[in-house]
Amino acid sequence: MLQRLCVLRVSGSISSAAASFHRTKQSLFSSASSAMAATEESLRKALAEKQSAVEAQGNAVRALKAAAAPKSDIDAAIQSLNALKLEKTDVERHLQSILSADGGLSREAFRQAAVNTLERRLFYIPSFKIYRGVAGLFDYGPPGCAIKSNVLAFWRQHFVLEENMLEVDCPSVTPEVVLKASGHVDKFTDLMVKDEKTGTCYRADHLLKDFCNDKLQKDLTMSSEKAAELKHVLATLDDLSAEALGAKIKEYGITAPETKNPLSDPYPFNLMFQTSIGPSGLIPGYMRPETAQGIFVNFKDLYYYNGNKLPFAAAQIGQAFRNEISPRQGLLRVREFTLAEIEHFVDPEDKSHPKYKEVAELEFLMFPREEQMSGQSAKRIRLGEAVSKGIVNNETLGYFIGRVYLFLTRLGIDKDRLRFRQHLANEMAHYAADCWDAEIECSYGWIECVGIADRSAYDLRAHSDKSGVPLVAQEKFSEPKEVEKLVITPVKKELGLAFKGSQKNVVEALEAMKEKEALDMKAALESKGEVEFEVCTLGKTVTITNKMVTIQKEKKKEHQRVFTPSVIEPSFGIGRIIYCLFEHSFYMRPSKAGDEQLNVFRFPAVVAPIKCTVFPLVQNKQYEDVAKYISKSLTVAGISNKIDITGTSIGKRYARTDELGVPFAITVDSTSSVTIRERDSKDQVRVDAEKAASVVREVTEGHKTWQDVWSTFPHHSSASTEE
Amino acid sequence: MLQRLCVLRVSGSISSAAASFHRTKQSLFSSASSAMAATEESLRKALAEKQSAVEAQGNAVRALKAAAAPKSDIDAAIQSLNALKLEKTDVERHLQSILSADGGLSREAFRQAAVNTLERRLFYIPSFKIYRGVAGLFDYGPPGCAIKSNVLAFWRQHFVLEENMLEVDCPSVTPEVVLKASGHVDKFTDLMVKDEKTGTCYRADHLLKDFCNDKLQKDLTMSSEKAAELKHVLATLDDLSAEALGAKIKEYGITAPETKNPLSDPYPFNLMFQTSIGPSGLIPGYMRPETAQGIFVNFKDLYYYNGNKLPFAAAQIGQAFRNEISPRQGLLRVREFTLAEIEHFVDPEDKSHPKYKEVAELEFLMFPREEQMSGQSAKRIRLGEAVSKGIVNNETLGYFIGRVYLFLTRLGIDKDRLRFRQHLANEMAHYAADCWDAEIECSYGWIECVGIADRSAYDLRAHSDKSGVPLVAQEKFSEPKEVEKLVITPVKKELGLAFKGSQKNVVEALEAMKEKEALDMKAALESKGEVEFEVCTLGKTVTITNKMVTIQKEKKKEHQRVFTPSVIEPSFGIGRIIYCLFEHSFYMRPSKAGDEQLNVFRFPAVVAPIKCTVFPLVQNKQYEDVAKYISKSLTVAGISNKIDITGTSIGKRYARTDELGVPFAITVDSTSSVTIRERDSKDQVRVDAEKAASVVREVTEGHKTWQDVWSTFPHHSSASTEE
Repeated sequence: MLQRLCVLRVSGSISSAAASFHRTKQSLFSSASSAMAATEESLRKALAEKQSAVEAQGNAVRALKAAAAPKSDIDAAIQSLNALKLEKTDVERHLQSILSADGGLSREAFRQAAVNTLERRLFYIPSFKIYRGVAGLFDYGPPGCAIKSNVLAFWRQHFVLEENMLEVDCPSVTPEVVLKASGHVDKFTDLMVKDEKTGTCYRADHLLKDFCNDKLQKDLTMSSEKAAELKHVLATLDDLSAEALGAKIKEYGITAPETKNPLSDPYPFNLMFQTSIGPSGLIPGYMRPETAQGIFVNFKDLYYYNGNKLPFAAAQIGQAFRNEISPRQGLLRVREFTLAEIEHFVDPEDKSHPKYKEVAELEFLMFPREEQMSGQSAKRIRLGEAVSKGIVNNETLGYFIGRVYLFLTRLGIDKDRLRFRQHLANEMAHYAADCWDAEIECSYGWIECVGIADRSAYDLRAHSDKSGVPLVAQEKFSEPKEVEKLVITPVKKELGLAFKGSQKNVVEALEAMKEKEALDMKAALESKGEVEFEVCTLGKTVTITNKMVTIQKEKKKEHQRVFTPSVIEPSFGIGRIIYCLFEHSFYMRPSKAGDEQLNVFRFPAVVAPIKCTVFPLVQNKQYEDVAKYISKSLTVAGISNKIDITGTSIGKRYARTDELGVPFAITVDSTSSVTIRERDSKDQVRVDAEKAASVVREVTEGHKTWQDVWSTFPHHSSASTEE
Repeated sequence: MLQRLCVLRVSGSISSAAASFHRTKQSLFSSASSAMAATEESLRKALAEKQSAVEAQGNAVRALKAAAAPKSDIDAAIQSLNALKLEKTDVERHLQSILSADGGLSREAFRQAAVNTLERRLFYIPSFKIYRGVAGLFDYGPPGCAIKSNVLAFWRQHFVLEENMLEVDCPSVTPEVVLKASGHVDKFTDLMVKDEKTGTCYRADHLLKDFCNDKLQKDLTMSSEKAAELKHVLATLDDLSAEALGAKIKEYGITAPETKNPLSDPYPFNLMFQTSIGPSGLIPGYMRPETAQGIFVNFKDLYYYNGNKLPFAAAQIGQAFRNEISPRQGLLRVREFTLAEIEHFVDPEDKSHPKYKEVAELEFLMFPREEQMSGQSAKRIRLGEAVSKGIVNNETLGYFIGRVYLFLTRLGIDKDRLRFRQHLANEMAHYAADCWDAEIECSYGWIECVGIADRSAYDLRAHSDKSGVPLVAQEKFSEPKEVEKLVITPVKKELGLAFKGSQKNVVEALEAMKEKEALDMKAALESKGEVEFEVCTLGKTVTITNKMVTIQKEKKKEHQRVFTPSVIEPSFGIGRIIYCLFEHSFYMRPSKAGDEQLNVFRFPAVVAPIKCTVFPLVQNKQYEDVAKYISKSLTVAGISNKIDITGTSIGKRYARTDELGVPFAITVDSTSSVTIRERDSKDQVRVDAEKAASVVREVTEGHKTWQDVWSTFPHHSSASTEE
């Protein structure tokens, strides 16, 4: 049976399940890429044709020369050859430009500029740098840490507070039995290969993926059939068994990247960090690979806390741990990360949601299963339409998709680079009703950042079975319900007379009949008066007469229904969201003098690490006192701020805070009034020094927009200001 | 050399260092207990005397009977015996009452009532309960989780934001090299003993402590000398070596508590959870036992981020892990917990603090080293006085003590059950300048909840040495400073003539002279013209003349001073603070009818898990609509709230939220105006339905007090209301 294996998705294949979690989707699914794929294929064909033509013409030239043909003939043939070569070069260039545009050079350059700024300003840095670091572990420095805590605070406000969710906080150290029940101990694995000489470990699918991508990128003369084969491998990478993966590695002659040594066969490596709880060494434990299990094992208490009522949602924010074989892509694939997970428990017979209407009119990029299968691209769909057409399985799932869309776009994720992709049938576990990933496009491609899955009753059942504690809900009927039940009553006296010592076996066999079998017997007894009946435990058939058993439907009263709730799980990879937010917020603009490019992060106020900087225009005690007064007022109001009293030019000081994404700057250029400058427009307004803090508060807390402020106070646009 | 071993303290003894971290202080240090100890001693003496007297009189009675003395004599003797027995019983009772008052029954009963409520309402519960739990791991349920996130948010506001600290966020998974440098790999241990037959593990000091406490509590006939001995053992428990601890266990005949089997000798057990990083199994790692190391290893980057200026503080909130041998006392000694740590880096030559004056006038319970040594109790001291008298080592340390006091009391910690205890000389590491613990008294005694230590340059030096990366600060002089340096200039020509092939050894030996040696030589050369000089590398003494070397003081210009900063570390055990807060906030009061005791938590609004509940007085659509409107307004304003539309009586609904510590309840009893009720006074005011949310917001955010609200609106006191 398939298991719950990863947070943000479920997989169709057990062996590659963990592998698929952090996966960035292949260009197969990118919205622009299907058209691109068509172009690429025709170009590869054209290139192969040109290549043959060049070769044929080359042969022709050589033949003419060998035959000592007239010079004019030879020259004409050479001219044709050169023309063909030029045409081939043209096609080659065209193909190259398409391949590099798709995940190519400009993305790399953009990422480099963003990441340089992020690391230089300590948004994040490799952990334990002075000891040369450890792959897959990162520290958030001051601005990154502030952004992370802002994102989490906003998540709490948007989900926990607005939806009255039950937030819990469970330990990371988890005893083995819990993760055995959830399936992680047996199946939370990635396939690994080892360099047979040095012992260095690699993820098998990564090596195969890199090989295919590299080949596609660099081998322009590859036949279009070969290209299609490699693309098929890339698209089905997550479904490959250990054997299939090993066979491909052998077939393509893939060796260890650094040493070129041969590789071992792929074998599963469990991604959990293992440890031991207590001093005896006898209680194995793991660092949790997700936070969800802490909620499932507490279902009974939480249901009670909620007054034994459904639906309700529990939530948890916390660290999760995965001992990745080969971490890469910076913050996107790490060994320790923060998850924010919601488990919304609901009656499987009623998945409506009372607040569904609030999101039904939202329209955004969705990428349903069918569009993916038919090679189309993601398209804008109204959420209400997706639900009513059954594209999205139910209202509650739809509601959360809408809430996730609002959460991400309010954080500052570009709505045109955000899509909701439905899992293909083979990506989903058999028990899942429907799954959608919120994918955000960044320089690494489309990155799965939030998974929203209807996991049915799977998780609660698994823990019920393992622990023996029923994790169920009751629906009390307002008045008892009459239900018809089939009642089988063996007449023991008659059976005793007929079967003597075998009476007990016959009685048990009669009582064990399924409904259909019993109804058939009833019909036969009524029409014929007797029936042949096989008693397995006796190994023979006996004759039952209508005196020996009565079978009839009876009406019974039931007072409640007992059932295992379904769970709908939105699960957020906070570090991935933050990284994508960094990329979506980053841009460069020329300095006033035009002599350099300045970096800016356009974070919305809710996310910005510092909301406001305060600058005295010149070093002067009076201005500094005003600046300190304003800074203190901001601090009291809970608005994070920073004074910069260095003598640096005001333009440099603006540039310095633009690079941290600070949305507002107050410049003290008199003791009575000051200017407030907005980061992206660089526009300024003039306000009383005493009002400055409250104006900034209103606009950072969202009670007013910058437009409101702009129209209320004297102002001048950036064109007229000196920076 | 001693190492940094625990977060909240340092210890004088390596082997018991970890043991001392979680220790709750012995009654030796409790403020009321020195007087109590004197009484106890005199009572034990009196009891022993009465016992002898009873025995003597008993013998006398028997002797009279044996000698067939007159009945009147025997009766008189028996009367005396009975009188003596009564006196003995009196003393016994008195002694018993003293022993049980000190950590005795009333505390147990109070704790039981509080903990019952806390677990029933899911403030916290044992983790993985359906699998029978794991000792030392707890989940925070919804109200506990909300309180924890409120405490952390307030911590961020009070420390990080107000002080402009650099907050960082580092992983828990830590490679061995970092914890080797910090000393944790070698010395973060507790002494453990094993049941020699079953292998069950115990903390050696716990067994000895339990034995002594039990003996003192129950053996009333113990001599006062023996009692004094056991008390001495308790007081010096943390200083006992493995050998001494083992000897005491043998001497007292202590066996395994469950089986009574003999115990092994004590041996050190490292408290870190060990794991392995990456797939090769070759990189050992640990779950961090504290968050501080993540800051120290980033010092260089943080110093740069701060513009290469001192002082500055970095801060981190995060999980820490300790694989306790035998967790006990609920939330107070757990295997995974949240720490909030500050590392304030400062020039060792200037530990003044610019904001020190803001706290200097605070006065609270302090327990300096001297008072502890001389058996006095904690006393109220003005912080400014403690610093100026040198009781507290420096202004910065004093500043943080003051800020911690404000933090804890604003959270709701009772200032009369909060004291700052200075570490005794033998509790501190040799490098520490001064250490104070904020101790909070709860039913388990005085609990160390925050440690505030001046750790000098120890941590940065340890990582500098291990990593080879200098972790230093520079002070650039505004103008170059002249410093006098002793310069030794060997005259090589003369030395070559005199010593030929040995010249090099002599030159090196001359240049290697320490200042005093060189000055002595200079004086000798000036007075006598020559001097005998031992050259170790030649194994002989040579004669140096005044032609062979010039030694003189020269003035040099230096442009900067390079030094390792000192670090002052306030370190907060968040779970411990929260548990003490639970106890300090809990009380019971009779219901209106007087027929039952109702539980209340008097959390201040800043901490309360839910700030406000909204009740329609009766089930009625109009009232419910008003209630929903108010609830939504509260949510938008970020005020956590809960609607209760069950038909339960209003009194029961109040009681239910009092038990969660909700400070305000809005009852909708009309469509135009509503009442707001304050939890502790049970007083009510009447306000317009539309204003209700903003009134509650103002009073929960601290812009107004309940008194302000009370005097602004029509009101009635609890005496006149129906609950």
